[in-house]
Amino acid sequence: MQLNFAMEENLEKIIAELNELIERDDIKTIVMLVEDRHPVEISEIIDHLVEERKRYLFQLLDAKMAADVLQEVSDLTRDQLLEEIEASRLAKIVDEMASDDAADIIGELPSPLAEEVLGLINDEQAQALRQLLRYDEESAGGIMTKVFVSVPEDATVQEAIDQIRATVNQAESIYSLYVTDRRGVLVGGLSLAQLVLSKPQEKISQIMNADVVSVPTDMDQEQVATLVEKYDLASVPVVDRAGRLVGRITVDDVVDVIVEEASEDISKMAGTTDEEIRQDSALRIAGLRLPWIVISLLGGILSGTIISRFRLTLGSLLALAFFIPVITAMGGNIGIQSSTIVVRGLATGEIGLLHIARRILREVRIGLLMGLMCGGIVGLVAFVWQGNPLLGVIVGSAMLSAITVAATMGVLVPLFFRKINIDPAMATGPFVTMTNDIVGLFIYFGLAVMLLKLLG
Amino acid sequence: MQLNFAMEENLEKIIAELNELIERDDIKTIVMLVEDRHPVEISEIIDHLVEERKRYLFQLLDAKMAADVLQEVSDLTRDQLLEEIEASRLAKIVDEMASDDAADIIGELPSPLAEEVLGLINDEQAQALRQLLRYDEESAGGIMTKVFVSVPEDATVQEAIDQIRATVNQAESIYSLYVTDRRGVLVGGLSLAQLVLSKPQEKISQIMNADVVSVPTDMDQEQVATLVEKYDLASVPVVDRAGRLVGRITVDDVVDVIVEEASEDISKMAGTTDEEIRQDSALRIAGLRLPWIVISLLGGILSGTIISRFRLTLGSLLALAFFIPVITAMGGNIGIQSSTIVVRGLATGEIGLLHIARRILREVRIGLLMGLMCGGIVGLVAFVWQGNPLLGVIVGSAMLSAITVAATMGVLVPLFFRKINIDPAMATGPFVTMTNDIVGLFIYFGLAVMLLKLLG
Repeated sequence: MQLNFAMEENLEKIIAELNELIERDDIKTIVMLVEDRHPVEISEIIDHLVEERKRYLFQLLDAKMAADVLQEVSDLTRDQLLEEIEASRLAKIVDEMASDDAADIIGELPSPLAEEVLGLINDEQAQALRQLLRYDEESAGGIMTKVFVSVPEDATVQEAIDQIRATVNQAESIYSLYVTDRRGVLVGGLSLAQLVLSKPQEKISQIMNADVVSVPTDMDQEQVATLVEKYDLASVPVVDRAGRLVGRITVDDVVDVIVEEASEDISKMAGTTDEEIRQDSALRIAGLRLPWIVISLLGGILSGTIISRFRLTLGSLLALAFFIPVITAMGGNIGIQSSTIVVRGLATGEIGLLHIARRILREVRIGLLMGLMCGGIVGLVAFVWQGNPLLGVIVGSAMLSAITVAATMGVLVPLFFRKINIDPAMATGPFVTMTNDIVGLFIYFGLAVMLLKLLG
Repeated sequence: MQLNFAMEENLEKIIAELNELIERDDIKTIVMLVEDRHPVEISEIIDHLVEERKRYLFQLLDAKMAADVLQEVSDLTRDQLLEEIEASRLAKIVDEMASDDAADIIGELPSPLAEEVLGLINDEQAQALRQLLRYDEESAGGIMTKVFVSVPEDATVQEAIDQIRATVNQAESIYSLYVTDRRGVLVGGLSLAQLVLSKPQEKISQIMNADVVSVPTDMDQEQVATLVEKYDLASVPVVDRAGRLVGRITVDDVVDVIVEEASEDISKMAGTTDEEIRQDSALRIAGLRLPWIVISLLGGILSGTIISRFRLTLGSLLALAFFIPVITAMGGNIGIQSSTIVVRGLATGEIGLLHIARRILREVRIGLLMGLMCGGIVGLVAFVWQGNPLLGVIVGSAMLSAITVAATMGVLVPLFFRKINIDPAMATGPFVTMTNDIVGLFIYFGLAVMLLKLLG
C-alpha cells in the first residue's frame, strides 16, 4: 500500500465519527470501522480520544491487534490503557507479543498485577519474561528479545531451515541466524541471504561468518545503539559473561533507543525531563521542571546580590543598568551554543576525548572573535546613545570578556562533566546560563569600578 | 568477535605508534598494523590524525577498505580526504560502494571532479549514480540505494533465489525481495524468511505479501524515518510517481537520518547549525553562529532601551536593578523548557496538531503554578532583603506575570511556526530567550511604575 499521508486531516473526521459511535454505543459499526486498519493507524486514533474512550475502543480489539496497538500508542496512552486492565485480558495480549516488548509492558505494571499476569501465561513464556525482567531496562539485556534462530556448528543448511520454520511465526523478523557450540557459546553468524544461496546438505560451519559482532547483556543501550549505527547492523546477538547466546536485539528497537536518547538529551539541556511528554497533569509537570527552576532562581538572586554590592557605582552611572540584560543574554547564548555542540558531539561520538586542548583553544578563539565584534558594536552603541565614551569602553570591554569566558566555559564544563562521568547534557541549558549570568555581571561591574577609578 | 570497548585508551597508543611509523615512512609496518582491522576502527584512527597524515594513511588502503572507511570517518575528515584525491583513485573507491553511498560522495564533489569520476566508472553504475544525483539529497530518492532484488509476479521461488545470487555480492544486505508487475509497478513483497520456507517451484505471487509499505522518491527523509520507525521496517521500497519500483532504503541509512535530524534540531535550538561539527576554522564557526548572535545583540540593546525609558523610576528605587537578571533568567528558562518539549514532541510525532487548545491551556496552568511559587519566593526575598514591602509586591507580581507569559509563548511560538511551515526548532533557544527578556522587562518596569503610583 501507498500510505495515506493526508492522514492528519482524515484523522479528525474519523475521530469525530468514532466519538459519535461511542456515544451511541454502536459497537458493531465501530468494529467495522477499525477492523481493517493498520495497528499504527488505530494507535494514532486512540491517542486522540479522551481517556475513558481510549479504554472503550481498546477493549473492542482482539488480542493480536491490542498487542500491536499497545506498543504503538504514546506513553501517556499506554499508561492510561493499562491502568484499569484485567489480568486475564492482559495475559492474552502479552501472549501475542515478542518477549522484549512483553517484558517492557510487564516491567511497568505494579508488581502484584505483574505476578498475576505472569501466572496466567504459559510457563515457557513466563520464564523467558522473568529472565528478561531481571536485566536493567536500559541495558542490552533489557531491550533484547528471546526470539532468535540458533543452530549448532555441525548442523546442515537444511536443519537450519527447519529451525527457522519452528521459530518464524513468532513475531519479530529474522534477518540472520546464529551458530553456537555445544556449551551454547556464540561462534558465528549467517545472513538469510547466505543461507538461501547454499545447498541443503552444506555444513553451517563452512559457510558461517566467524567474525560476528555481539554485545554483553549489561552493555548500556546507548552504547548498543552507537555500535549498531557504526557497524550498520540489522540485528546484534547478546551474550552472557560466558559468551553464551541469550538473546538478540533488532534494529527497530535500536531506532527506538536512539530517538529516546535524543529526546532525553534535548530535555536535559533545557532543564527538564522527557518524562514530561507522558504527563498530563500541570502540577506534575511543574514538579519535573522545578529542580532547575529553583536552582536558577537562586542563581538569579545571587546575580542580584552582585549588582547590589556595586550599588554606589550604579547610582553614580545609572546607564550601567541599561546594559545588564545584553551582557547576561549574550553570555548565555554564546555559552549555550558552544556547550550544545560539545554535548551533541560527545553523544554521537563525533567528538572524542582526544585533542581536547585543541578544541578548547579553538573555542577561546571563537569567543574572542565574537566578543570583539559584539563588544565593538555594543560599546559604540553605548557611547553614541548615552554620549559617554567611558561607558562605551566599560560596556564594550565587559562584553568582550564575558563572551570569551562564556564560550570557554561552554566547552570546558561538558568535557569536565564527561570526564567525571556525569551526563554532559546536564551541563548545558540552565546551568551554563546561570553561571554565565553571574560571571558576566561580576566582570561587568568589576570593570566598571576599575575603569571609573582609572579613567573617570 | 567481542568488541574491544577499552578502545579509547588503546587508540592513543595506536595513534602514537602510527605517527612514529609515518614519520619514518615505514609503509610495510603501517600496512601490517592496519591490515586486519575493521573499517570502523581504521576510521576512528584516521579521524585522530593531523590532516596530511590522514591522506597519507588513506592512500595506503585498498579500494574496498577505502570505500568503507570513507563512509565511517567524520564529516570533517571526509572533506579533508576528498580534497586532494585523484579522480582515478576515487573512481576505484566509488566502484566498491553501494549506489546510495557513492552518490552521497559524488554529490559533495566540485562538479568537474564529479564528472571526471563518473566518466571513469563503468557505464551502468555511472547511469545509476546520475539518476540518484538528480534527487534532493534529503528526500527518499536521495537516500535510497539501487541495490535491491525484484522479481516478476509470475516468477517461482527458485527464480527468486537465482535473482538474489546475481545481486548479493553487491554490498548492502538483502532482507526481503520485491515483486513487480510487467510495467515495473510494485505489487508485493516477501521476506527472505518466507522465501527460505517455500518450495522452489512455488509461485511468488502466491506467497508474497501484497500489502507492502512503500514511499515515493520525493518524500522528505525525516518522514521516511518516522515511517520506518513507526512500522518497524528493516527496509522500505521506493517508487516513482507511476508506482514503479526504483530503489530501496535500508534501516541503517534511516538510523543515520534520525541521528542527523536530532543533531540538526538540537543545534537549531541553540541558535547554531550542526555544520559546525565539520568545521575546523574558528572564523567560519563564528560566522555560522553569527546570525542569532546579532539578532540577540539587537534584542539585548532593545531591552536596554526599555530600561532607559524607566530611568526615573529606576533612579527613585535603585534596588529594582538588582532583580533585572532574575526576571530575565527565569523567563528565559521557563520559555526554553516549554518550547523544547513542544519542539521535540512535534519532531517525534508525540505531539500532533490536534487538541492544541488543551495543550496551551495546560502550559498556561504550569506557568501560573511556577510563577506563583517563584514570584512568592523572590517577592519575599526582595521584601526581607531590602526591607521594602512594595518592592516585594512589584518583584513578585512581575515574576508571576513574566513566567506565565514565558510558558505560554514557549508553547505558542513553535506551534505557530509549525502551522506556517517554518521549522519549529528555530523558535526556541535565542529567539524565545530574547522575546521573553523584552516582554519580561516591560512587565517588570510597567508594574513598578503602576504600583509605585498606586501604593507608593
